[in-house]
Amino acid sequence: MSRLFHNIREECGVFGIYGHAEAANHAYLGLYALQHRGQEGAGICSSDGNSLYLEKAMGHVSEVFSEKRLKRLPGMAAIGHNRYSTAGGSHLKNVQPLMVNFSLGSLAIAHNGNLTNAFALKTQLEKEGAIFQSNSDSEVIVHLIAHSREETAQDKIIDAVNQIKGAFSLLILREKELYAVRDPHGVRPLSIGLLGDAFVAASETCALDLIGATYIRDVEPGEMVRICDNGIDSIKINPAKKKAHCVFEFIYFSRPDSNIFGGVNVHTVRKELGRQLALESYQDADVVIPVPDSGVPATLGYANESGIPLDFGLVRNHYIGRTFIEPKQSIRHFGVKIKLNPVRQILQGKRVVVVDDSIVRGTTSKKIIKMIRETGQAKEIHMRISSPSTIGPCFYGIDTPTRGELIASTHMTDEIRKFITADSLAYLSMEGLRSVIPNPDDYCYACFTKHYPITFPQEEQYSQLELSFV
Amino acid sequence: MSRLFHNIREECGVFGIYGHAEAANHAYLGLYALQHRGQEGAGICSSDGNSLYLEKAMGHVSEVFSEKRLKRLPGMAAIGHNRYSTAGGSHLKNVQPLMVNFSLGSLAIAHNGNLTNAFALKTQLEKEGAIFQSNSDSEVIVHLIAHSREETAQDKIIDAVNQIKGAFSLLILREKELYAVRDPHGVRPLSIGLLGDAFVAASETCALDLIGATYIRDVEPGEMVRICDNGIDSIKINPAKKKAHCVFEFIYFSRPDSNIFGGVNVHTVRKELGRQLALESYQDADVVIPVPDSGVPATLGYANESGIPLDFGLVRNHYIGRTFIEPKQSIRHFGVKIKLNPVRQILQGKRVVVVDDSIVRGTTSKKIIKMIRETGQAKEIHMRISSPSTIGPCFYGIDTPTRGELIASTHMTDEIRKFITADSLAYLSMEGLRSVIPNPDDYCYACFTKHYPITFPQEEQYSQLELSFV
Amino acid sequence: MSRLFHNIREECGVFGIYGHAEAANHAYLGLYALQHRGQEGAGICSSDGNSLYLEKAMGHVSEVFSEKRLKRLPGMAAIGHNRYSTAGGSHLKNVQPLMVNFSLGSLAIAHNGNLTNAFALKTQLEKEGAIFQSNSDSEVIVHLIAHSREETAQDKIIDAVNQIKGAFSLLILREKELYAVRDPHGVRPLSIGLLGDAFVAASETCALDLIGATYIRDVEPGEMVRICDNGIDSIKINPAKKKAHCVFEFIYFSRPDSNIFGGVNVHTVRKELGRQLALESYQDADVVIPVPDSGVPATLGYANESGIPLDFGLVRNHYIGRTFIEPKQSIRHFGVKIKLNPVRQILQGKRVVVVDDSIVRGTTSKKIIKMIRETGQAKEIHMRISSPSTIGPCFYGIDTPTRGELIASTHMTDEIRKFITADSLAYLSMEGLRSVIPNPDDYCYACFTKHYPITFPQEEQYSQLELSFV
Amino acid sequence: MSRLFHNIREECGVFGIYGHAEAANHAYLGLYALQHRGQEGAGICSSDGNSLYLEKAMGHVSEVFSEKRLKRLPGMAAIGHNRYSTAGGSHLKNVQPLMVNFSLGSLAIAHNGNLTNAFALKTQLEKEGAIFQSNSDSEVIVHLIAHSREETAQDKIIDAVNQIKGAFSLLILREKELYAVRDPHGVRPLSIGLLGDAFVAASETCALDLIGATYIRDVEPGEMVRICDNGIDSIKINPAKKKAHCVFEFIYFSRPDSNIFGGVNVHTVRKELGRQLALESYQDADVVIPVPDSGVPATLGYANESGIPLDFGLVRNHYIGRTFIEPKQSIRHFGVKIKLNPVRQILQGKRVVVVDDSIVRGTTSKKIIKMIRETGQAKEIHMRISSPSTIGPCFYGIDTPTRGELIASTHMTDEIRKFITADSLAYLSMEGLRSVIPNPDDYCYACFTKHYPITFPQEEQYSQLELSFV
Repeated sequence: MSRLFHNIREECGVFGIYGHAEAANHAYLGLYALQHRGQEGAGICSSDGNSLYLEKAMGHVSEVFSEKRLKRLPGMAAIGHNRYSTAGGSHLKNVQPLMVNFSLGSLAIAHNGNLTNAFALKTQLEKEGAIFQSNSDSEVIVHLIAHSREETAQDKIIDAVNQIKGAFSLLILREKELYAVRDPHGVRPLSIGLLGDAFVAASETCALDLIGATYIRDVEPGEMVRICDNGIDSIKINPAKKKAHCVFEFIYFSRPDSNIFGGVNVHTVRKELGRQLALESYQDADVVIPVPDSGVPATLGYANESGIPLDFGLVRNHYIGRTFIEPKQSIRHFGVKIKLNPVRQILQGKRVVVVDDSIVRGTTSKKIIKMIRETGQAKEIHMRISSPSTIGPCFYGIDTPTRGELIASTHMTDEIRKFITADSLAYLSMEGLRSVIPNPDDYCYACFTKHYPITFPQEEQYSQLELSFV
Repeated sequence: MSRLFHNIREECGVFGIYGHAEAANHAYLGLYALQHRGQEGAGICSSDGNSLYLEKAMGHVSEVFSEKRLKRLPGMAAIGHNRYSTAGGSHLKNVQPLMVNFSLGSLAIAHNGNLTNAFALKTQLEKEGAIFQSNSDSEVIVHLIAHSREETAQDKIIDAVNQIKGAFSLLILREKELYAVRDPHGVRPLSIGLLGDAFVAASETCALDLIGATYIRDVEPGEMVRICDNGIDSIKINPAKKKAHCVFEFIYFSRPDSNIFGGVNVHTVRKELGRQLALESYQDADVVIPVPDSGVPATLGYANESGIPLDFGLVRNHYIGRTFIEPKQSIRHFGVKIKLNPVRQILQGKRVVVVDDSIVRGTTSKKIIKMIRETGQAKEIHMRISSPSTIGPCFYGIDTPTRGELIASTHMTDEIRKFITADSLAYLSMEGLRSVIPNPDDYCYACFTKHYPITFPQEEQYSQLELSFV
Repeated sequence: MSRLFHNIREECGVFGIYGHAEAANHAYLGLYALQHRGQEGAGICSSDGNSLYLEKAMGHVSEVFSEKRLKRLPGMAAIGHNRYSTAGGSHLKNVQPLMVNFSLGSLAIAHNGNLTNAFALKTQLEKEGAIFQSNSDSEVIVHLIAHSREETAQDKIIDAVNQIKGAFSLLILREKELYAVRDPHGVRPLSIGLLGDAFVAASETCALDLIGATYIRDVEPGEMVRICDNGIDSIKINPAKKKAHCVFEFIYFSRPDSNIFGGVNVHTVRKELGRQLALESYQDADVVIPVPDSGVPATLGYANESGIPLDFGLVRNHYIGRTFIEPKQSIRHFGVKIKLNPVRQILQGKRVVVVDDSIVRGTTSKKIIKMIRETGQAKEIHMRISSPSTIGPCFYGIDTPTRGELIASTHMTDEIRKFITADSLAYLSMEGLRSVIPNPDDYCYACFTKHYPITFPQEEQYSQLELSFV
Repeated sequence: MSRLFHNIREECGVFGIYGHAEAANHAYLGLYALQHRGQEGAGICSSDGNSLYLEKAMGHVSEVFSEKRLKRLPGMAAIGHNRYSTAGGSHLKNVQPLMVNFSLGSLAIAHNGNLTNAFALKTQLEKEGAIFQSNSDSEVIVHLIAHSREETAQDKIIDAVNQIKGAFSLLILREKELYAVRDPHGVRPLSIGLLGDAFVAASETCALDLIGATYIRDVEPGEMVRICDNGIDSIKINPAKKKAHCVFEFIYFSRPDSNIFGGVNVHTVRKELGRQLALESYQDADVVIPVPDSGVPATLGYANESGIPLDFGLVRNHYIGRTFIEPKQSIRHFGVKIKLNPVRQILQGKRVVVVDDSIVRGTTSKKIIKMIRETGQAKEIHMRISSPSTIGPCFYGIDTPTRGELIASTHMTDEIRKFITADSLAYLSMEGLRSVIPNPDDYCYACFTKHYPITFPQEEQYSQLELSFV
């Protein structure tokens, strides 16, 4: 599933920096590098040691922040957040960081992930008089902190974190300190870097690269890191649990130049997935082409292993605006054509292997294959997917469709092949996937297996969750 | 020179349609497909048979046009224009189409190319009382039409076209007719297609593909095509001259999925340029990587011919906004890093061939090589360019730097190699270039040879031209 | 002090309607009529019986609401609010209505007045875990409701209202009911009207007039009126206290066409204040002129009583924009001139009486007199003020300057006369004021007497109040 | 006809300054003072001695110009223009100053008035190849200058001015000089002032007052004044013709604090018109009230002469936005109520004289009288108009309705009285009007008499004029 087609949306990127004279500017750059993790809105909260300052808005990072706006964010510390894009219920109030005043001063949070017990916590907090401003599950964390009976701010934060369940890579900024917290399973990535004397925390290492920071280590699952003028402390707040890193970060989410989950390079993994795919599902053909852009590394691996020549049979339009006006009269395959155009000269009369990273609903794959067939008059079209079939929705921070919409949750592979009109279709096997991923037992594969490593309320409750928080 | 680094800017795309109920909507889509030819501003002028309607603004096509705005463009005919982006003197008044009222009604023009005698014509017209509204050379055409002593509108247009020199692919809309005109040398592309009963004209065929139109033929050099309710006519208005198609359209400008200058596919030519480059300048290495995105096809050709594995060692940030705030404190190679990030795992300890389509000033190549060397610790870095060295500025519609800024116009290849700190540097030879291009005598190679096929006023006058019109 | 010079700013207007098919449109009109009570921002919250809908923004009512925006406010009930304009700390989050979700659903409030115990209540609520979103004292009311231990929404509201002290004319909207509440002293006005079957509540009757509603009665001090589908109920929630209507509503705030505090016409009172002023401080002169516009009715009374001819010696510029650029080079009396221009022909060589409603800092009066003297070459200039001298700041909802800035709190009348360079200066006496106002014991005169009828925390605390809430 | 009801719209104000370091800032202030002459759009063109700089936009002066925008207007000379507001065909391109480049450099013009031979001149110019950018008659002047066969710029301007007919108070800015020109009849006002060493030209003296400039004299009818670094010159370019100052400037257009047509104060004239009206049409009554604001001075004169007490029975809403949303359900007299509210206490049971400056269509007067009668239960309502009945449209720069819409052009006074439902109606007599105006033979009274002092093409042609230029 190319990033061009937004059936799966990534959930948020976070960035924090402490101890740098250009804190807000670097947060801006960090968010810029993490833009692929969320395009709905962006925000930065900075601290000058006495007060917090917040600027946020709907839109891409480069649209949200002007030079003037960044100047309204003084101080040596800052956290930032990119929010993913949704169709309907998106509002400024859901854009993070969330900043609040409470009895001990101010705090701001930036959260990547999804809480599985947010609904129950919210109901309880409202009974105690809490007034919620947004639909974001992240706001629950803020109210837990404010309502905590602990004395100090740090103890209130620990108290709150101990109550939440699910996936969270979390940055919390106070006037004189920055906390970076990761859930006990380590579902989402969160890395720490050093830029001169300043400490940096970021969802992916590509953000460290852009600002020239050096990667040190990840925030460990269940760890709370506290950064202040005295340096960096590690506070283990949760007992160790079985690791459950999100394997989809490798398959689709993270940028190929990032190294995640202990420094593993994403591009390299993707290329290996393609190589493994060729080993498992070789298909004699004249050319192998990627669905740009996320299918490119796997296609390279596939081509290398199979010996079939790689070419770029689908050309991407690089200027896709966010609002696009469709013609009233039907143009065939319009929704795909606006993003991709097949190159007849590459495809004409050929046996073509098309490599993509995943299939979600199947409708896009169907359009792509039809377009290749019509325009390119390809002789055969074989679809190869560099991950197993996606059968379970994610409850840990990936905005997949509900189960009913996942074509593979209700259809056999050959039915899907017929639906997308391919001459053949093959997914990567689970074993193949695990053989490529280092330390494969440390990962969550729930979207491929429906074995959910983190418990959550009964089925009927997470349908409510979907209503409340998506 | 990747399109990511704007030293060379493409000059405009044009699109016209006649006889379609959704004329303006299709013009919008056509401009969308041609967005790479100009990002400064966009406009559409439509006709409902009685009046012309104009909407234009600064910005990308998808920003300029909302559904509401497109509804203000009624009628069955429309022309549109994308204008390229410049730093300083860009103004709405320079955005096309230019629409005017004159003694015989209204007309609008959309022009791709550059006139070489615009300055002299403008001076003469002003002496006769003409008041110019813009700095665009295209406005000269409009005044020539209005000032013509001929009786009919068509004769006035022919009279005007006979006076202009240089490069022009021109669309002219009147209340009940659409003209498509190309200069006698055929410098810029201009193709004709059919969509149901409607005729379409577009700078490149990728615009025909998007709306589902079928390519028929190019507007011939020196030809004026007239489209009206009675169908299509061809009027030869200029004696045949030696063809001088712009070879840079193949090397850099046009989209790879377009077929130009008589139906030649751009991607295929680029791949062949890379293959020829490998034949001429093979370099033993561990990996060959492109400068994304325009270097990709040539890299593929180079890899195929040389047998060196292709990989993607530079990852592009897909979310580059138009305004970007630089940090005050220097970040090394910042200007390049914001667009590209090297992947250490691909480059580390390797002998790397980097393929790009051209070198203009050399500063970007220098930054890219330094960044690869530092981050990736590559052992050797060899630069390969899929075109000859660029030594002459273009006066026919490409916004190249002045001669002084073209590094190859004042430096030998080995000096350039030292400047960009490459271990080796090789350009494609002129013979190699000509061997790949079909009908090589029909092309203008002035940027590589300084042999300008179209005469223009003396040197001092075109410096004035640069002042007036750029 | 003319409304042209913003030393005193009115504090907010509220409007509510229940049971009308065009509820939001009528709220818009009501706010429009009450625009003089607040220009910083405006908002409307509507209910369709199931959900609340909120739209608010900075700016005048006619700027905030477009037809499109009003259409986003469905339902038969709505409340609206105009917020007064402040220089620095004005933010969208302070614009009302405040709308929140709490354990029993949604509610929205619109508040005119100022709470005297807001600081203490806020501190207590934050200790209990409340997170405040704004600096507005009105938000305290919302948290008191959410934190109340009572069972039903109505009991929670009563519980909250019983805890707040100070001035409040308050509208509260829930899904199926509208509450109108007034503090036990009745400081700010709040009237009820009928429009067909719909009930209307508004700060002033001019809002009833505009929509064609009939005035019924005021909400009584200490009364809570509940309007729902079953009609209207009165709930006495506070024991009766001594009335303390704000006399400044007559002198300056309310519109002259409004009837307030039991139906007394404002224009008529102002004219009588001028007449009484002439009785007390007659001055032989050639002409009596008002400071437009708020000085006009008193000037008419003064002219009628004194027999001195009225004329308009100061002409107002009707197009004062909100942002105005001052010239760098000094223009004499610029700040006044931009709003008023003296008419030489009326003033030349004359003995002039100038009537204004009040003097706050004295600087504007000084500039006006100097301007009249220079431009008009008036022989004598006598200043007459249609209220007693203003010596105490207001803590019940009028944004007067602090005591130190009130010229009359630290200077004798003759010192003020010298400062403003008038030939004579006279204020209306307290007895004169009381003789004009019907039921004079029912009013608060604290700004003239410093006898504050509503208790509040010690002096040092209300300086904190000023910091927190202004 | 109060300015609140836009049936008659004033046509433009102009302002120029030469030799002042803050030229653009003062032009901004000047336009601000002249805002009542046009609210559709505003613009300023400045010169730094070498180049002209232009900024203009739709909207009020204070909206169009920010501090940033004014800084883009460098230099010691500037001209500005306020354009009147129209409903439909208003476009930015019609906003002035018009600035153009022609064979001798740049020039900008700002024009108040209307040309009577614009259509014929435009047709001729288009035949010669001129391309018009706007529908403004003012653009004709620019093309006449550019097309002139004279050698120097000044001679070209004189040549152009000699060809135009009608009303024009005209400012022309070139790089190093400013021209102020007035038509031979002196229809519109144009005064000259001195501010330090700088010369100022303005439509009305209120603009001189605001910036502290001293009034010197008017530009004479048929005179061209040239201001440059060497000082001021007078060039008589037109033979003297009979003066025809617009009497409506006194009745309605100009600000009351301005002195026009040789220094006559507008407020004083208006008061005298009211006094004369009382002499001619005394009516026994209890109160006399103005229609605010333009009816106020005449009402004062009427009250003084008649001895009937003046009061303000109609209160104006000072916050009328430009876009106002009407309720779908009819509110009685809504269009009037949104601007005016009657004060029952002043009107109840009274015999009321209502004074207004003119009646155009009669519909507003009708609504006002009905509203007074219903709300105020006035016993009798007598309408008095401080000018003769308006029977002829203006072709010299006032945007009156066409003749058919002027109620007095087709109805007798008693018919109008019945239509507006007044108990009596009286206009000022022509003799009365002439008796108040100094040098009454020097004025145009065409709107009252249909004797048009300036010839123009036949009737059918000025209907074309209305189509083309309004």
